[in-house]
Amino acid sequence: MSHEVISIIGGSGALGFGLAVRLGQAGVPVVIGSRDAGRAQEAAAQAAELVPSGSFSGQDNAGAAAASEIVLLSVPFRSQSETLTNLKTTLREGQLVVDATVPLAAAVSGKATRTLGVWQGSAAQQAEEMVPAGVRVISALHTISASKLKDLTHELDEDVLVCGDLKADKERFGELIELIPGLRTVDCGKLEMARLTEQLTPLLIGINIRYKTHAGIRISGLPEA
Amino acid sequence: MSHEVISIIGGSGALGFGLAVRLGQAGVPVVIGSRDAGRAQEAAAQAAELVPSGSFSGQDNAGAAAASEIVLLSVPFRSQSETLTNLKTTLREGQLVVDATVPLAAAVSGKATRTLGVWQGSAAQQAEEMVPAGVRVISALHTISASKLKDLTHELDEDVLVCGDLKADKERFGELIELIPGLRTVDCGKLEMARLTEQLTPLLIGINIRYKTHAGIRISGLPEA
Repeated sequence: MSHEVISIIGGSGALGFGLAVRLGQAGVPVVIGSRDAGRAQEAAAQAAELVPSGSFSGQDNAGAAAASEIVLLSVPFRSQSETLTNLKTTLREGQLVVDATVPLAAAVSGKATRTLGVWQGSAAQQAEEMVPAGVRVISALHTISASKLKDLTHELDEDVLVCGDLKADKERFGELIELIPGLRTVDCGKLEMARLTEQLTPLLIGINIRYKTHAGIRISGLPEA
Repeated sequence: MSHEVISIIGGSGALGFGLAVRLGQAGVPVVIGSRDAGRAQEAAAQAAELVPSGSFSGQDNAGAAAASEIVLLSVPFRSQSETLTNLKTTLREGQLVVDATVPLAAAVSGKATRTLGVWQGSAAQQAEEMVPAGVRVISALHTISASKLKDLTHELDEDVLVCGDLKADKERFGELIELIPGLRTVDCGKLEMARLTEQLTPLLIGINIRYKTHAGIRISGLPEA
């Protein structure tokens, strides 16, 4: 069974790389994007080593963003705006950007257990303001531990909280991400609700420090899929 | 085994009443507080009907706040400040206030899926600013469904996220609330982290609407207790 290609901007970073190997293992062809094409190719080679059955390639961010219809944005908040500015002439109508940015105060040398206020309300809404017309943005993946993704022996069992204005976009992404065993998507409403979900990363970072673990989120009480 | 008494300010409200019956069932004597002493007594009688083995009494808020060392504050955000102003001469050094207030935009006729910005950072921090010197404040219970508490046939299985500056306060409350089967406390850090946990209520309210359920939160990946 062949799946839709996904591009991961910031795919050489911890979360991006973890997603790349898990998606690759699930049979999804992955284009890893990085500011530096060489680093992207290196990450793709590393991913292929971990998942020999996977299909990975590496390109600079613009090349990766052009290469597929679903573009996952997994960069530090510090780089989000610059990255999207650089992609303004690359992203095209009809593409779906999945923003995983978290406005951690670490972006301005603050703590990773605190967040910054974003003028637009959330990093996802900042992304939405910055992408070219016709590019749609959803927000997801803030509560997924990078190191648990990368450790392929770890059995995942957690929820991916997704915010976005169009149900169809959330479902399209959900079908892709749920190919990874142990991940379930939960529709958390419109994109503006990313104001809430982005706050969960610093909460989990604090819990991780306190409990020496890699915590995740499960929403209880949902009807069985 | 006899347990410490707990007072619940706003105990005739949905969350307060649900906690009252569950705590009563667990053997904790509960003083239900309400603005109106008659309404408090009525709620206590209702609770006793649901849990004949429980010990419930009803008093006005001041009477309830004076009656025990642990005072749970479960009122709408609209009433939080007024309630604490009225209790300024009642609360005393050494008491522990457990604030469950959520700054939902519903307080100003907005949506229950949105929050208001609180000057102090969170409703819990507003509470801390308002209580007399020597009264300590922790923050908890924002993700617990009132109707699942009240329905004694429902088996709970969720986490109580607790924020507070002193570990001993969080543990003291944890010992009490974990007497309710199916609830586990998770230490979410200092009181200022209530800025994050208070945001989970509107997130769950949105999920409840979308999935027609009463959702809760589980933190995955924690070491076994």
